Amino acid sequence: MTTPQPLRIGMIGYAFMGAAHSHAWRTAPRFFDLPLEPQLIAVAGRNASGVQAAASKLGWSSTETDWRRLIERDDIDLIDICTPGDTHAEIAIAALEAGKHVLCEKPLANSVAEAERMTEAAGEAAKKGVFAMCGFTYRRTPALALAKRMVEQGRLGNIRHVRAQYLQDWLSDENAPMTWRLDKSKSGSGSLGDIGAHSIDAAQWVTGQKITGVSALLQTFVPERPLAGDLVGLGGHGDVAGDAPRGAVTVDDAAIFSARFDGGASAGAASAGAIGVFEATRYALGRKNAMRLEVNGTRGSLAFDFEDMNVLSVYDAAESPDAGFRRIMVTEPEHPYVGNWWPTGHGLGYEHGFTHQVVDLVNAIAEQRQPEPSFADALQVQRVLGAVEASAAAASRWHDV
Amino acid sequence: MTTPQPLRIGMIGYAFMGAAHSHAWRTAPRFFDLPLEPQLIAVAGRNASGVQAAASKLGWSSTETDWRRLIERDDIDLIDICTPGDTHAEIAIAALEAGKHVLCEKPLANSVAEAERMTEAAGEAAKKGVFAMCGFTYRRTPALALAKRMVEQGRLGNIRHVRAQYLQDWLSDENAPMTWRLDKSKSGSGSLGDIGAHSIDAAQWVTGQKITGVSALLQTFVPERPLAGDLVGLGGHGDVAGDAPRGAVTVDDAAIFSARFDGGASAGAASAGAIGVFEATRYALGRKNAMRLEVNGTRGSLAFDFEDMNVLSVYDAAESPDAGFRRIMVTEPEHPYVGNWWPTGHGLGYEHGFTHQVVDLVNAIAEQRQPEPSFADALQVQRVLGAVEASAAAASRWHDV
Amino acid sequence: MTTPQPLRIGMIGYAFMGAAHSHAWRTAPRFFDLPLEPQLIAVAGRNASGVQAAASKLGWSSTETDWRRLIERDDIDLIDICTPGDTHAEIAIAALEAGKHVLCEKPLANSVAEAERMTEAAGEAAKKGVFAMCGFTYRRTPALALAKRMVEQGRLGNIRHVRAQYLQDWLSDENAPMTWRLDKSKSGSGSLGDIGAHSIDAAQWVTGQKITGVSALLQTFVPERPLAGDLVGLGGHGDVAGDAPRGAVTVDDAAIFSARFDGGASAGAASAGAIGVFEATRYALGRKNAMRLEVNGTRGSLAFDFEDMNVLSVYDAAESPDAGFRRIMVTEPEHPYVGNWWPTGHGLGYEHGFTHQVVDLVNAIAEQRQPEPSFADALQVQRVLGAVEASAAAASRWHDV
Amino acid sequence: MTTPQPLRIGMIGYAFMGAAHSHAWRTAPRFFDLPLEPQLIAVAGRNASGVQAAASKLGWSSTETDWRRLIERDDIDLIDICTPGDTHAEIAIAALEAGKHVLCEKPLANSVAEAERMTEAAGEAAKKGVFAMCGFTYRRTPALALAKRMVEQGRLGNIRHVRAQYLQDWLSDENAPMTWRLDKSKSGSGSLGDIGAHSIDAAQWVTGQKITGVSALLQTFVPERPLAGDLVGLGGHGDVAGDAPRGAVTVDDAAIFSARFDGGASAGAASAGAIGVFEATRYALGRKNAMRLEVNGTRGSLAFDFEDMNVLSVYDAAESPDAGFRRIMVTEPEHPYVGNWWPTGHGLGYEHGFTHQVVDLVNAIAEQRQPEPSFADALQVQRVLGAVEASAAAASRWHDV
Repeated sequence: MTTPQPLRIGMIGYAFMGAAHSHAWRTAPRFFDLPLEPQLIAVAGRNASGVQAAASKLGWSSTETDWRRLIERDDIDLIDICTPGDTHAEIAIAALEAGKHVLCEKPLANSVAEAERMTEAAGEAAKKGVFAMCGFTYRRTPALALAKRMVEQGRLGNIRHVRAQYLQDWLSDENAPMTWRLDKSKSGSGSLGDIGAHSIDAAQWVTGQKITGVSALLQTFVPERPLAGDLVGLGGHGDVAGDAPRGAVTVDDAAIFSARFDGGASAGAASAGAIGVFEATRYALGRKNAMRLEVNGTRGSLAFDFEDMNVLSVYDAAESPDAGFRRIMVTEPEHPYVGNWWPTGHGLGYEHGFTHQVVDLVNAIAEQRQPEPSFADALQVQRVLGAVEASAAAASRWHDV
Repeated sequence: MTTPQPLRIGMIGYAFMGAAHSHAWRTAPRFFDLPLEPQLIAVAGRNASGVQAAASKLGWSSTETDWRRLIERDDIDLIDICTPGDTHAEIAIAALEAGKHVLCEKPLANSVAEAERMTEAAGEAAKKGVFAMCGFTYRRTPALALAKRMVEQGRLGNIRHVRAQYLQDWLSDENAPMTWRLDKSKSGSGSLGDIGAHSIDAAQWVTGQKITGVSALLQTFVPERPLAGDLVGLGGHGDVAGDAPRGAVTVDDAAIFSARFDGGASAGAASAGAIGVFEATRYALGRKNAMRLEVNGTRGSLAFDFEDMNVLSVYDAAESPDAGFRRIMVTEPEHPYVGNWWPTGHGLGYEHGFTHQVVDLVNAIAEQRQPEPSFADALQVQRVLGAVEASAAAASRWHDV
Repeated sequence: MTTPQPLRIGMIGYAFMGAAHSHAWRTAPRFFDLPLEPQLIAVAGRNASGVQAAASKLGWSSTETDWRRLIERDDIDLIDICTPGDTHAEIAIAALEAGKHVLCEKPLANSVAEAERMTEAAGEAAKKGVFAMCGFTYRRTPALALAKRMVEQGRLGNIRHVRAQYLQDWLSDENAPMTWRLDKSKSGSGSLGDIGAHSIDAAQWVTGQKITGVSALLQTFVPERPLAGDLVGLGGHGDVAGDAPRGAVTVDDAAIFSARFDGGASAGAASAGAIGVFEATRYALGRKNAMRLEVNGTRGSLAFDFEDMNVLSVYDAAESPDAGFRRIMVTEPEHPYVGNWWPTGHGLGYEHGFTHQVVDLVNAIAEQRQPEPSFADALQVQRVLGAVEASAAAASRWHDV
Repeated sequence: MTTPQPLRIGMIGYAFMGAAHSHAWRTAPRFFDLPLEPQLIAVAGRNASGVQAAASKLGWSSTETDWRRLIERDDIDLIDICTPGDTHAEIAIAALEAGKHVLCEKPLANSVAEAERMTEAAGEAAKKGVFAMCGFTYRRTPALALAKRMVEQGRLGNIRHVRAQYLQDWLSDENAPMTWRLDKSKSGSGSLGDIGAHSIDAAQWVTGQKITGVSALLQTFVPERPLAGDLVGLGGHGDVAGDAPRGAVTVDDAAIFSARFDGGASAGAASAGAIGVFEATRYALGRKNAMRLEVNGTRGSLAFDFEDMNVLSVYDAAESPDAGFRRIMVTEPEHPYVGNWWPTGHGLGYEHGFTHQVVDLVNAIAEQRQPEPSFADALQVQRVLGAVEASAAAASRWHDV
């Protein structure tokens, strides 16, 4: 066995996503045979003491307090962007232009215009063998990857219905503190971009179809919230004293929209495309991370809920009258990603998606091919987000993507 | 114990709904103490031999082949309408004008105009102690009745989200035969009025709020279907030979809409009303009768699925961090309707809702008060159905109810 | 259509089981085409006013206060025994000798000796075309009937494991009142015979195998309970005042046993028989009527829980690696008994099992063949109950049936 | 922040358990603040190339091919034993005598006699500040740790029932290859010690009660299996060619036993102790890693299934009549271990238990207190295993522990 070449990583941001990405970079080579060896070279953040503590905790060899400096460094091959959405475009474009591969958290950007510029930059870079990928990590949940495989195998037939919910409840308490996620200038949108974007990407990816138009409704339930000291934290847990100053919530708390799909690459008269219902909220008390996707086709159905993330439920109409939703424990060695982990029935957790993402990214880079989801894929999601906002602003009138 | 006075019933129609209603009339006095004794006097239907066989099978003492004759009879106190929606208005108005109480299947009518005339007739009749009720029978499912009780007790706080799905799959097979339910002239609409109407009524009733506006999408997946001999049958089971002549499906196969609620009777600034997502389809393969309702409030949530009809799931945020959806077996004697049946844990079935409906109706008539849902309640549902169709016809643009 | 001949019923006892049986006799001909028409001729009970009220409520034409008189009547063809177990033998034998068919509630008797005499009487009667049946009604739950069908079709392969639980909680409160079910002289045993007997019968019936030996443990958690006025009631709901006199509980509160099965009729070297675990208790707080059965074979598995009675879960190993427990809604017209009821997905309730039991019994009598479960089948269950008690009394030592 | 002192680890064995332990040692300091810094110094295994590859893959700095040499090394503070059970006693005693802390995989040993000697050695070592711990890792599943907390808080009242199943299916295929786990000389027992031991420990730990006696049944379904090349592998996945030579299975395939508990430390007349049912098998087709525990007390119940490992279901009788099993997502920051990981609803996986185990062990060593489960705790489990085997060998006769 020859020692693989290094892939030297620089990461920007070290909060929730930074911790998840760091774990992935550390762990991937321990369970998967990678063609390149990820090295955690440097992490960047504005706060010097904060970034140093993070580097020590998360396993990075050095730190920077200016992301531009990170990009300038010669000992970095890949920039991993874990910051709020308002910074994605500037960082990603600079990194790509500097010849660094990029892994960028979702949503790709805070506007379609930014996403288009990023996609253009990614296209240019790809010509030089420098690749960009967007972190729609739910694609790497084994159960959803199995779902896509089954749709591709034709086991659902033509798709008629898509039903996507992303339900959380961490903002239900009106005294939960203000966070950057509720500030439109930082996050671009609220539930829509934070969690709805995952549903859009997963629905399009699993079905192999693009959304062509939407009708939408956005709602803000709690228009202002107490200001806590640190607005860049994870947010959501714990109240702030009732007399704290309050800041304006400038994003949606909940997003609801219906959609039409394009019927896929091979769509003809027989497959006119599916219709979909989407809902994203952080106010569904009792639903903690219910990222759900159900798809009904002419031959079968599938259903997924991230709260039971190691299971995919599949219905095959051919088994009628004894058909029923089959609860597949997606923990067999034949299932996507699973064979590198534990024996059957020993389930994976949330962070495994990030590890799988790194595995796929490293393999693509080593093989000099475009990793998925590409920035172009993420731009399509961004266009759906834009259409949702446009429709909601126009009395829910249908809006083409 | 004195013998109760009789309540003499005449029923029109004897298919699926006729069988369910007959069972309810026969069974209610065996498990409940009724102030009036239902007597199954006569059943009416156009086909003489068919109606005679039905009378014998279902327990009716006599038959009529013209519903007008049934209304003219002196030995009938209540007309039970189990026919397709295009006949409801004429029959119900005639019966009420003839001084007969009326139980009318849902949806109340095939148009708002019809429903308005029926409601007017019901209002006039009520002044004379003659009452009309619409058969939104899911209200009588113990779990949904418990849900309403909990909302009324304030256990959910102010309602923010309503999530209503009614998913079936009996039309998924494109060779399933044409039925009257797919003929707009008979049924008024498709999934929307047949099953979506149940969701609308249940959502409004459980939350105590009215829908004030909608944005909608309607879809017909299979535009024509093979004609079977009998178009008045239940439909849905069994294919028809492939070379059978085909008839046009003139209704929606699926209906999706978002909605806003009025915040309830006591709605003020603090309770601006909920938003809702509704979906009704007969093409969700694997979902057999998934009439689901989830409601999220500021203090708690509840969730129901008719496929597990004896269960209500309830979440109480005050129990945090050890809160969770509590799976209540709604089979305790303290639960609505349940004390008259079996011991704890011995669940009820679909037809019990009809029996409970009869119990509530008979009690209301005996006590000379308006039974619920009234025609006015059903008219409100009809107005929502109308708004859904109007929005769908206008590129999903928001439409006030 | 010729009018069917009558089958004239006399019922003894009118509490919980009497209400369930009455409903079945009334309802069966309304949904099924029966070759004989059940007529509810007379009900017997010791308390004259009680039995008259019951007759009126449950639909019986006349009453008797002595069950012997009921058996003497010429206008009775079938005796339906709904009394506590200590009376079964005397009544059933007398009825059979008088030429009456018998439907006897379970468990068949309070001892193996009684059950043997009853089985002998049933054997003699059968020679004269008079039949006896024992009311193990769970066999008539569609999901369990489907389970048996699947085992017979070989879809599970050779059976290895049986896992049967019957969990209730209505005695968990130590102040729940004394009832006849806790008096060994009346009921024979406690959880063992009341609910464990159902598990034994279901396990043997579904697998097609007999239990050949057991090792058992019996436990009484609450040795005495407050005496309520009426010891013949259903029991279980509601406390009695703390200072009420207390009576001794003389039966088991919980029964646990392991078992070996005989491998079925065709058992050879390759199918050495399954092993089983059984548990019956009324102290499993939160489990209301969890009559559960799981069977694992060499090719597949099935699982059932009466708390979700319209569902059977089935696992087919041939579908591996995408195998999973398939949640079959047992509400299709092709499923046992279901075609005579409602459309797909409209579930049945507890009492339907009794209606199906009547349907099967009436058909067997009309066709002059032995209905199942026969008294001989029930005697086998009684022998298992006896072996359980013997093993428990001998330090759990293995005891052959 | 001062740099913590190192805790230098040497691990013996590098298969399934070795991979899990390595991951834990690497990951624990990244998510938890540890008072000592684990260093992965050396891994030992008999096969030189195998152990070198494992060291590289799993992150160990050096290797040994003789475990005795590992114990002799001065640069090792703790010996982590991940080998089959036949080697545990010799290694653990040698390590403790050499002044090394010990983490030993379960079951502690292959016999009670070995376990007693190990416990004695651990007792001697503890006097010198050298500690031993046994790896019953399921204790570190957050949901089971929450279960124990709830029992300790008295939320279940006095325990009456314990219901423990550990169901797998990876040996159901009779052509799955022979492994060391099926060789009694290596593994001590089959399902009993491999998975049943986990159930015994979890049941005793969660309830705070010891098992005092058992009645048991052991069964071997497949008496011989094809021999594969490597008998030390994980086993279970994939068939071997039909004509491969076969080896004798010398352990149980399934274990069933009933048990009595001692009522806990404060047991008096009012809490006579619970009764339990245990079942362990690798032949329950469709059950992949169903490590289940249900406990019923006088005030409430709890239920857990490792196939849904982030959930604990809890029933509180005080909520009656609206009580129900509450499905707690054990992903809140207040839940055991959870606060160091991800936001609410982002579940953990199988390997997290090993990480938590390391955290608890490192903390105990740093604070110079006995980590749990101690060897004495594990000896108690071993005694139950011994009693099960003794009872099974004596016609299931009750056997005191």
